[in-house]
Amino acid sequence: MPFELTREYIDDLKLLIEKKDDAAALEKINPLHPADIAEIFSELEPDESQFLYYLLDSEKSADVLVELPEDEREQYIEEMPGEEIARKVIDNMESDDAADFLSELSEEKQEEVLQNLEDVEQAGDIADLLSYDEDTAGGLMAKELLKVNENWDVAKCIREIRKQASDVIEFYTVYAVDDDNLLNGMVSFKRLLISRPASRIKNIMKTDIISVKTDTPSEEVANIMKKYDLITLPVTDTIGRLVGRITIDDVVDVIKEEAEKDYQMISGITEDVEHSDNVFLLTRARLPWLVIGLTGGILGSMVISMHESELKISPEMALFFPLIGAMGGNAGVQSSSIVVQGIAAGTIDLQGIAGKLMKEVTVALINGIILSGLIFLYNLAFSDSFALTITVSVALFSVILFASVFGTFVPLALHKFNIDPALATGPFITTTNDIIGLSIYLAMGRLMYGIF
Amino acid sequence: MPFELTREYIDDLKLLIEKKDDAAALEKINPLHPADIAEIFSELEPDESQFLYYLLDSEKSADVLVELPEDEREQYIEEMPGEEIARKVIDNMESDDAADFLSELSEEKQEEVLQNLEDVEQAGDIADLLSYDEDTAGGLMAKELLKVNENWDVAKCIREIRKQASDVIEFYTVYAVDDDNLLNGMVSFKRLLISRPASRIKNIMKTDIISVKTDTPSEEVANIMKKYDLITLPVTDTIGRLVGRITIDDVVDVIKEEAEKDYQMISGITEDVEHSDNVFLLTRARLPWLVIGLTGGILGSMVISMHESELKISPEMALFFPLIGAMGGNAGVQSSSIVVQGIAAGTIDLQGIAGKLMKEVTVALINGIILSGLIFLYNLAFSDSFALTITVSVALFSVILFASVFGTFVPLALHKFNIDPALATGPFITTTNDIIGLSIYLAMGRLMYGIF
Repeated sequence: MPFELTREYIDDLKLLIEKKDDAAALEKINPLHPADIAEIFSELEPDESQFLYYLLDSEKSADVLVELPEDEREQYIEEMPGEEIARKVIDNMESDDAADFLSELSEEKQEEVLQNLEDVEQAGDIADLLSYDEDTAGGLMAKELLKVNENWDVAKCIREIRKQASDVIEFYTVYAVDDDNLLNGMVSFKRLLISRPASRIKNIMKTDIISVKTDTPSEEVANIMKKYDLITLPVTDTIGRLVGRITIDDVVDVIKEEAEKDYQMISGITEDVEHSDNVFLLTRARLPWLVIGLTGGILGSMVISMHESELKISPEMALFFPLIGAMGGNAGVQSSSIVVQGIAAGTIDLQGIAGKLMKEVTVALINGIILSGLIFLYNLAFSDSFALTITVSVALFSVILFASVFGTFVPLALHKFNIDPALATGPFITTTNDIIGLSIYLAMGRLMYGIF
Repeated sequence: MPFELTREYIDDLKLLIEKKDDAAALEKINPLHPADIAEIFSELEPDESQFLYYLLDSEKSADVLVELPEDEREQYIEEMPGEEIARKVIDNMESDDAADFLSELSEEKQEEVLQNLEDVEQAGDIADLLSYDEDTAGGLMAKELLKVNENWDVAKCIREIRKQASDVIEFYTVYAVDDDNLLNGMVSFKRLLISRPASRIKNIMKTDIISVKTDTPSEEVANIMKKYDLITLPVTDTIGRLVGRITIDDVVDVIKEEAEKDYQMISGITEDVEHSDNVFLLTRARLPWLVIGLTGGILGSMVISMHESELKISPEMALFFPLIGAMGGNAGVQSSSIVVQGIAAGTIDLQGIAGKLMKEVTVALINGIILSGLIFLYNLAFSDSFALTITVSVALFSVILFASVFGTFVPLALHKFNIDPALATGPFITTTNDIIGLSIYLAMGRLMYGIF
């Protein structure tokens, strides 16, 4: 059964640490999975988790380090000499984890660690991986893979796998290459097990395979693996030579992170924070949007004060300030978020921008007519001023139309210029929509009160 | 290389369909992966995709059906007799896909299909799977798995795998059970390949394994597989007997869907829509939130009109209606979304509610002091009314404090009562925050203008 971390467990552990009861504390955490130990560390004070960390043997503590969030990891490796990192930490890791781990260190420290690795090939692999952009297939892949020549037979292939497999953790597929290391096929373990020893790999391998290049963006890698339900994905260089493989568990993290990034943007949080982070981090992540919102509110007050003379004549217009502001923001975010999700799923490029805007205008027209119709009926029944009734309806209609089109256009434009389209769901655009909405409303009021 | 769908490709294909050129159209789509064909179908008109569908052979068309979104799939299977569904579609599917597929049909149709399956064991497996709630491990798992007795040796195990593996698509792990079918261990293919034929499974298997029960919620399954970087996860019944296995690709869909659901909720979209959906669907998904926003705006106007007499004396208060409304909404959504993400990640239950509220109050106090300080300075410099300056600052401070606490409390309370906490980021709470914010502001105004 998976381990479940409870408040009681943490309290017990804290007590053992306080009593400096090494043996009992180690006995409590040692049988757990490294991911669970990392979770426990995150719940403890730094000095408490450090106490536990030094109780673990070096393989276990390396595994725990891999599982820790980047910011918590620092305290353990900052003081560690490069030689110790090489021997105790990196030596127990797969190449992709090792590269991720090293990429957080300074360049001098990276070099120091790599030079101290006993296995020169491993050091070379890690150095290779460090050269790729972390948001590409090259940055996601690991070098460890089972590779056989397509001209071998199954028996030789199995002998070779026994040789290659000893120093790596887990495999799901065997890749078949030609004499130039060009990736030509894949053989599953199942296939190897059920084929005759004399069969040539060429004749049993699957040739219809999907691969990516080292510079394929991570988001595209995630979309491909998801779409084709792949467990592993081979990575080749530009001319098709096999250089690494990506497993789905690494991509799950990419999918999660992408989704979280978009979610944070739309909720107005500027950093990757969790409820368990400290008050300072939580405040810092939230203050920027609130400041932008405040600035927007001040700009809004300026817009209103420019129309002060009319408002003196028709003060009832103030009743609908909140309504107009909120509706512009809502309609805009709806439009933007649909475009942002489409871009993330990689399905947005098929229609031209014009086609998308046309559709958006149609949806906005329908919503606008229904909503301004509703508010018209409401004001007709309850408001004394027909000018106000007309103003609110026409302004609401215009605001919904404007915000929808603007909300569609901005993420598309950002995407075009290679800026994260999710920015469009963030504070700037919402605030802009609020202010423009107010301006439309007040301008409409000036016009309508002139007529009616 | 993965196939990339372009506008030109679709246009070419449409032309071939229009010319009823069967051979050329088939030649164009047949080499593609079923997932790509399904993507193409989604871009075509129903009669166009139906034309293509009937060109494909039955295995390929079954694969395409699996890949199609549920709502598009209906048109193909509605008219198909149960016998044909059994023979052409279900027979080519793994049990979990088959159960998902059948669960969309009426109960009579389900029975009809199951009775027409030639393989009685397969029919039994699917019927079993249909009995589980789709949001649990039972609903995610497949019945096909490689199972060996822990007392066998490797040679027998490989012979047995050759027998079991013939009718299933892919495996990554072999599960070891005792004579009572209790799950006791796991052996990887790598391990089998590199072990001596005479080794007993018991001696080479990994016993420290993670499994779930059939009634474990999907979200928890996803969190477990993500946390422990698992590719497959065995599922047992309540007493630990092996009944199925989940692969990570099925869980990727769960993760995506959960993230999308939360994202839609926070962006005010009530249904699972994409930019490519039709205008009617897009409108229907967006109108409900806008109507709630409109209702909130009307309630806001009522709140303001109740304070009409004060507003006549101090009309400048209207300048900051948009600011107060927006800030309440923003602060509330920030708090709610952090809690919602914590609940989704399964990490929220450790602290008590009181602890979380305390932390939230602290963050809100800091943000509130900074922001109300800023607006105080601004108004001190630019406003003629000291009463307004005080009112806006004190109200802003109170609104941020209230919205943050309310925004933290509501998703926790919803979660407690087993209601989706993401509701708290949706329209009701945001609108409530807007209105309460306005009320606080106006009440503050009455008080402050009385004093200053």
